[in-house]
Amino acid sequence: MLELVPLLGGGAAIILSLFLAYYLSRKPRGNKKMEEISDYIHKGALAFLKEEYKIIAVFVIVISILLLLLSHYTDIPYETSIAFIVGAFFSALAGNIGMRIATKANARAAQASRKGILDGLMIAFSSGAVMGMAVVGLGLLGVATFYVVYGGRAAGILFGFGFGASSIALFARVGGGIYTKSADIGADLVGKVEEGIPEDDPRNPAVIADNVGDNVGDVAGMGADLFESYVDSIISAISLGALVSYAYSQIYPLLIAAVGIFSSMIAMVFVRSKNPYAALRNGLFGAAILFIIFAFITTYMLNKEYGLFYSIVVGLIDGLIIGISTEYFTSHQRKPARKIAEAAKRGAATNILEGMSVGMISTAIPIISTAIAMVIAHEFANFYGVALAAVGMLSTLGISLATDCYGPVADNAAGISEMAELGEEIRRRTEELDAVGNTTAAMGKGFAIGSAAITALALIFTFFEKATRLLEKTNPNYHLNISLTNPYLMAGLFMGAMLPFIFSALTLGAVGRTAEKMVDEVRRQFKEYKILEGKGKPDYEQCIRIATKGALKEMVLPSLLAVIVPIAMGIWKIEALIGLLAGSTATGFLLAIFLANAGGAWDNAKKYIEEGNLGGKGSFAHKSAVVGDTVGDPCKDTAGPSLNILIKLMSIVSLVFLPLFIKLVH
Amino acid sequence: MLELVPLLGGGAAIILSLFLAYYLSRKPRGNKKMEEISDYIHKGALAFLKEEYKIIAVFVIVISILLLLLSHYTDIPYETSIAFIVGAFFSALAGNIGMRIATKANARAAQASRKGILDGLMIAFSSGAVMGMAVVGLGLLGVATFYVVYGGRAAGILFGFGFGASSIALFARVGGGIYTKSADIGADLVGKVEEGIPEDDPRNPAVIADNVGDNVGDVAGMGADLFESYVDSIISAISLGALVSYAYSQIYPLLIAAVGIFSSMIAMVFVRSKNPYAALRNGLFGAAILFIIFAFITTYMLNKEYGLFYSIVVGLIDGLIIGISTEYFTSHQRKPARKIAEAAKRGAATNILEGMSVGMISTAIPIISTAIAMVIAHEFANFYGVALAAVGMLSTLGISLATDCYGPVADNAAGISEMAELGEEIRRRTEELDAVGNTTAAMGKGFAIGSAAITALALIFTFFEKATRLLEKTNPNYHLNISLTNPYLMAGLFMGAMLPFIFSALTLGAVGRTAEKMVDEVRRQFKEYKILEGKGKPDYEQCIRIATKGALKEMVLPSLLAVIVPIAMGIWKIEALIGLLAGSTATGFLLAIFLANAGGAWDNAKKYIEEGNLGGKGSFAHKSAVVGDTVGDPCKDTAGPSLNILIKLMSIVSLVFLPLFIKLVH
Repeated sequence: MLELVPLLGGGAAIILSLFLAYYLSRKPRGNKKMEEISDYIHKGALAFLKEEYKIIAVFVIVISILLLLLSHYTDIPYETSIAFIVGAFFSALAGNIGMRIATKANARAAQASRKGILDGLMIAFSSGAVMGMAVVGLGLLGVATFYVVYGGRAAGILFGFGFGASSIALFARVGGGIYTKSADIGADLVGKVEEGIPEDDPRNPAVIADNVGDNVGDVAGMGADLFESYVDSIISAISLGALVSYAYSQIYPLLIAAVGIFSSMIAMVFVRSKNPYAALRNGLFGAAILFIIFAFITTYMLNKEYGLFYSIVVGLIDGLIIGISTEYFTSHQRKPARKIAEAAKRGAATNILEGMSVGMISTAIPIISTAIAMVIAHEFANFYGVALAAVGMLSTLGISLATDCYGPVADNAAGISEMAELGEEIRRRTEELDAVGNTTAAMGKGFAIGSAAITALALIFTFFEKATRLLEKTNPNYHLNISLTNPYLMAGLFMGAMLPFIFSALTLGAVGRTAEKMVDEVRRQFKEYKILEGKGKPDYEQCIRIATKGALKEMVLPSLLAVIVPIAMGIWKIEALIGLLAGSTATGFLLAIFLANAGGAWDNAKKYIEEGNLGGKGSFAHKSAVVGDTVGDPCKDTAGPSLNILIKLMSIVSLVFLPLFIKLVH
Repeated sequence: MLELVPLLGGGAAIILSLFLAYYLSRKPRGNKKMEEISDYIHKGALAFLKEEYKIIAVFVIVISILLLLLSHYTDIPYETSIAFIVGAFFSALAGNIGMRIATKANARAAQASRKGILDGLMIAFSSGAVMGMAVVGLGLLGVATFYVVYGGRAAGILFGFGFGASSIALFARVGGGIYTKSADIGADLVGKVEEGIPEDDPRNPAVIADNVGDNVGDVAGMGADLFESYVDSIISAISLGALVSYAYSQIYPLLIAAVGIFSSMIAMVFVRSKNPYAALRNGLFGAAILFIIFAFITTYMLNKEYGLFYSIVVGLIDGLIIGISTEYFTSHQRKPARKIAEAAKRGAATNILEGMSVGMISTAIPIISTAIAMVIAHEFANFYGVALAAVGMLSTLGISLATDCYGPVADNAAGISEMAELGEEIRRRTEELDAVGNTTAAMGKGFAIGSAAITALALIFTFFEKATRLLEKTNPNYHLNISLTNPYLMAGLFMGAMLPFIFSALTLGAVGRTAEKMVDEVRRQFKEYKILEGKGKPDYEQCIRIATKGALKEMVLPSLLAVIVPIAMGIWKIEALIGLLAGSTATGFLLAIFLANAGGAWDNAKKYIEEGNLGGKGSFAHKSAVVGDTVGDPCKDTAGPSLNILIKLMSIVSLVFLPLFIKLVH
């Protein structure tokens, strides 16, 4: 009977997602012009997804065949291959639904803003909620179904599900990240800087690619990233739950996740206030409070093991702290971004140095908070507690992802207001919605990094436990030495710590190369088509093709690296692999926060100046700040988020292939 | 009898150092003007050292009293306090001798260049050799003396010697790094950029401070850094040597170090060639080859344990690989720096991004090479092998430090040629010497980082071993769990990985704040004294005072952090401390290479453009490259090198206070 609860929770979320999608589809999309622009973005985004799916399909087929083959020679269950395909499919499906809705909701949000700012807010938020509910619904339903079907054997098979979800996330984050920033830089460098036309000017050939990029990067990429964290955290808790002696320990994380979904659904009614920021905050905090109450009741009714409940709450608080810290270090209303803006007065170099310094300092709170959360959760319930902390942090994902994905929709709505010339007032309203979106998106980024780190930790601990038990069974003479005195482990730790640097270098380089092509194309169109002279029209599709092609081509190498390195390391020495996972999680976490916060702070330092401070637009300080913003963009939207995936993916790949490593242990 | 060899080696090096100093003192310093400038630099550098010594004296007194007190309540031997003072004194003495000579050799090198470029080379190299020989001589003599006096007890006491050396290095690197870059930025931003006067123009009020900075940063800082690596590696080998069963295992590292000194001394005769770069390279390679032969003979005669010999060679090769990799990634004759220069054509932002990408990629070779070296050395002779690899890497330090310290002397010589208006030809010759110096300095930086990392690893392994044995004796019920499954250790690992980020943020911020004051002062002088109108004279001393004051004030917080954090962590949980050390060494190593190589590559990309490529001086690409160079300067000369000290210092502090932690274990 208990199994029904998570199935019900997942199902309810999917129904709500579909209902919201239907509700949105009935809303007007405004005038002809707005529809047209929205259609461009919609089609551009789907075109990218379609091309991406082709590459992913090849990857999924190759890996699932490999898994099937390996299941003959090792203890990898053959169902892993099926779970892998289902995990990939569910993640892709959630992303696809979210994108389809988001890329049409932009015009609807702009149109609704004509009535009032809160009408616009509700449309953009509902569109985000379609994504949020689809992610948690499909995630929980998928995991729970495998749990119901396979019972005690489910944990091992579910690693395949997580691996499938991770693979989609990898391509979505890396490919989407390269797409969005190359389009953005291309549009800005030529349009804004060289030609002096405003942001989102429809004459800019890269403007649609830029708006598509917001969706593929921040909607599809973010969704897939958190889908992965969500299912991985539940899977690791189920897996570790099999090794502890608490009653109902395996189903407990599923129930908690279901409770989180219900809390998120109820809390959506709190999303109302005259102030858009307050509305979203009420929703988030309301969900957290409801969840704590419900989780307590669940624990009370199920097993009265309050240590488990505390572990969950610790994770939830850690997520909150990380979000608040991110907001502090990146908001243009706070000291750090303003200090960066001040530094811009003395030039681009001091602006860059100050931003780097802020980014580095900003690692302290998230790292210390997560380290302490891990220790406390472990005190309460061992490794299982750490996994539960991850589940707790992600429990209200349904609503928090809705506020994250609200951002790009509001951003697009502002763009459409500009392009469709809806007038000063509407433009101002949508820009206010966009500004709120920037804050929630920044917090969302911090939250995504934090959840990736704690999920990766839970997976690493799962790997330890699994490896120890498997070795005891199959190779009792082998002594697994995972102490820091093992030089192989230390070597792995060093190399693991290095990987995020290499991975970031590759993704940053990819943006540079693709942006270069985009710049050339936009320059060519302005010149040959004489667009600014009013003679020709821009060819949006050519720019979309360049971004799509560049992103897909460039995502292959880093993606393969993330999959092949842990497998190669595990085949060489299992201890080296464990060191690799610990090292890459530590620096991946650090570097991701550094890149995200430095990038966010540079961005907002520029916005602060554009608001008229320190000389305002066009001043020397503004020019310096633009350099910082351009440097920060690929840091915060490509390299940083890709690291979230790297650290989780390497851990889940290691778990999937663990039986192979065990067989080869020597 | 064997004990005599290291004493002899150390003594011989000191005598050579004094002899070279005397030889240099007999060389002419050129005309009145040159003497005057050289005196300014000399006095400025000594003024900084004097002020720095005051602060260090307070620190040394406090720590030595603390150590004495603790020796009453814990098993810390009371002689540690004495060793600490002697270590600090020897390090300061070596730095002082090196600086005194270097700051007078600059004019001598400029004067000698009037005869020929090789005459200039010999003066600058001899001046570097004074430092090189003083460092290895005082280092080995100090360690060997304690070993002779205290025999078997020496290892524990010697940690105090290492701690003393580390303390000087910390202040020299952090303080010197802040000094040199704030003076440099101040001189460049106002003089070169705002007023358009050339580099090293005597009318620039900050020009002397800038030249002083080269000496306090690159001579005194580099010398103290490598003095620390040198003695720490020998000390950890002696300490681990007590735990292994090879014959003569404790005196072996001392003999190897002595053999390295003799090799370096002999190889100095190879430093001759028509090409300055080839001359230095011949010296370096000659010393390495001689050392390998002598080390083999030593091993053959002593104990025939060739595994030890191989460990040493592995370390030597690792150092070589790191040096070559650094040269590749930073030289303006190679692809990476040229790609950065290309990126400058599209603007400052792309220049910065490309430099970041190059810096990140450049971590791969040093990390992988060091990880493999560690595993191989461990295979040959366990942890003792790792310590020997560090000794091996540093064995020819006498000559390699001479080539490092040659750089700033050549740099100053070029500055003096400009300021004293020695004419085009002399300026060209000294600039050629300077260019060679830039290459050797870059390689030296890579080498300093690599040696810091492997020394820190050897110290960490020493800490493990010591802690295990001490706990077995005093607290046999306590199970030291240093496996990665210990959440305290993992929390320590995360926080340790974070520290280099925080430390770098502090040092980068310090440069920014001090440079700001310098900029204001230089602007004020130009305006009030009407220097450029030819009416007034610049007040060099005021600029020197600002750099000195700023550096000393700003170095205190990061320095205290480096000492207090490991002690606090060790008091909390000894396992967390071990995690902290491993984490900080891994990211400290990575970040140091990233910062040093990105900085070096930006610098050389600018130089490549200044040679007339891609538009040359004054072009758009050049302006963009100047931004990269300004960002890179504090990265490569302040934040990066300070990390070398951080990782070694935290390990040696942990070793010194280990008996305290053991007492508090719970």
